[in-house]
Amino acid sequence: MGLREAEIISALQKIFASTDPRIQVGIGDDAAVVATSPRSVVTSDMAVEGVHFNRDWSSAFDIGRKITAANVADILAMGGRCEYLVAAVSLTGGEEMSWIENLARGMQHEATLAGAYIVGGDVTRGEQIVISMTAVGAVGKPITRSGARVGDAIYLSSLTGWSAAGLELLSREISINSAAADMALSQFSAPTLDYATDFLSATAMCDISDSLMVQGEQLASASGVALALNPKLFSQSSEFGELSNLATEINADVWQWIFGGGEDHVLVATGRNLPGLCIGEVVADSGIAGSKILGVDLKKAPVSWSHFQ
Amino acid sequence: MGLREAEIISALQKIFASTDPRIQVGIGDDAAVVATSPRSVVTSDMAVEGVHFNRDWSSAFDIGRKITAANVADILAMGGRCEYLVAAVSLTGGEEMSWIENLARGMQHEATLAGAYIVGGDVTRGEQIVISMTAVGAVGKPITRSGARVGDAIYLSSLTGWSAAGLELLSREISINSAAADMALSQFSAPTLDYATDFLSATAMCDISDSLMVQGEQLASASGVALALNPKLFSQSSEFGELSNLATEINADVWQWIFGGGEDHVLVATGRNLPGLCIGEVVADSGIAGSKILGVDLKKAPVSWSHFQ
Repeated sequence: MGLREAEIISALQKIFASTDPRIQVGIGDDAAVVATSPRSVVTSDMAVEGVHFNRDWSSAFDIGRKITAANVADILAMGGRCEYLVAAVSLTGGEEMSWIENLARGMQHEATLAGAYIVGGDVTRGEQIVISMTAVGAVGKPITRSGARVGDAIYLSSLTGWSAAGLELLSREISINSAAADMALSQFSAPTLDYATDFLSATAMCDISDSLMVQGEQLASASGVALALNPKLFSQSSEFGELSNLATEINADVWQWIFGGGEDHVLVATGRNLPGLCIGEVVADSGIAGSKILGVDLKKAPVSWSHFQ
Repeated sequence: MGLREAEIISALQKIFASTDPRIQVGIGDDAAVVATSPRSVVTSDMAVEGVHFNRDWSSAFDIGRKITAANVADILAMGGRCEYLVAAVSLTGGEEMSWIENLARGMQHEATLAGAYIVGGDVTRGEQIVISMTAVGAVGKPITRSGARVGDAIYLSSLTGWSAAGLELLSREISINSAAADMALSQFSAPTLDYATDFLSATAMCDISDSLMVQGEQLASASGVALALNPKLFSQSSEFGELSNLATEINADVWQWIFGGGEDHVLVATGRNLPGLCIGEVVADSGIAGSKILGVDLKKAPVSWSHFQ
């Protein structure tokens, strides 16, 4: 991208600047040099325009927040703490410098919430905007997907479904002036990660990026158990009433949002006496049998988890 | 990508499988968990189809090798050793599974040469193939771009220009049956990184991804010095005759390849009594003045470094 690339990198260097002594070499050399712990967590997530985000629906700032949150959530889901991020971005060449800077500011905002730094990356030219981020974190005892035991309870760090509700409002072009609608739109544009819920004593944990059904099935399969989810427990969440009322208002199915919606980046964990929302229990069987989701019609399952029917 | 994504991830998991005890959690969970050294090097490189690679010109295996080599080279350029890689790939959905597997095998091949493991990644859908990799390495004393001192000699780990020669053969559709042409095509498709040249006592070092002129100028600028390159010294390289004859044969300019060509991923280093090819000396001034490149006509400079004219 010639001079433009140099300009962009120089602007990003200012936005991502840090004086943390753990960063020995930051942006501007061949690679960053950082202090790392003996055991690190590494994950990568890619977001493609038109697939994962839409410039008509989300600001550059929120797009930057969202891809960063998706990476950080994977680190949290291992019981880790995000320390460093690198971002590689392909741009079409038609973007304003202010759009690019706001994308970077969104990344920086979300990284700061996580206590992490953006220490490097790559900028290139492509036909569509593609953003790839990699997160490196520190972890003591990793929490995998495979440790769930029969008799464990199942917990969510917070109620799923808000992001799916926001997507439905946007795709059906419904405009509602309510706190619930604002929450849904905000969670769709950039989910709020929950740093307060302490799942470090969980037996198994997973970040819900696709949907509770998809990641629940993955956790069940990795652990060789089944997850018996109980909708009655979901409805005890303080947020359930708001989400449910919003669904009723726009003639949508709140259970589709909760079980089939993705991108809330809520954590699902198994264990005993954990904080968060208890949603069921681990039983001896496999997967998530529809029959176990009492009283909920899941026939209108989204494509993303149609292979569970 | 639904079931297809699961199939792809399962195939990649087999190709990237490792039993190294430093990998506590590999592909298949939310993130990988790996043993890291107290000081790590982190870098990211993105390759876009039609910009960085072309499926008509390169096999999937070579495309996988090339993007991996680009990442590994950035780690080597800091004086580090690559340990882990993650790969995020967007696919159009039209690729054969065998193409995807060969891409992964190319990545795995190059990672193995570097002594590194591919421990995670992401697969998604996009309009064009975009491959983003991040490398994490170990380093003792990092070698930055800013340590070059007046009086240092300048070295290349091997002669630059082969990749540019390969690109010229392909873009002009010239077919020549010679060892030099084969070398050029091979270096263009996937450069051979030089692990044998020991630059660990260098005062400054840089990976040549864009061109010797671009990265040389960056190193000079970071160090506050000038690089006085001497073409006579280049011609002492054992490879120079071959490359020069190839240029003559197809009526190309060997010096454009050497100074203006990119993607060889050769290392340029400054210091005293280093191995490799000595190409000049560090002097008190700034940048790389054309007048210092004695006797070489650089008027036909490629666009990538036209801002140095």
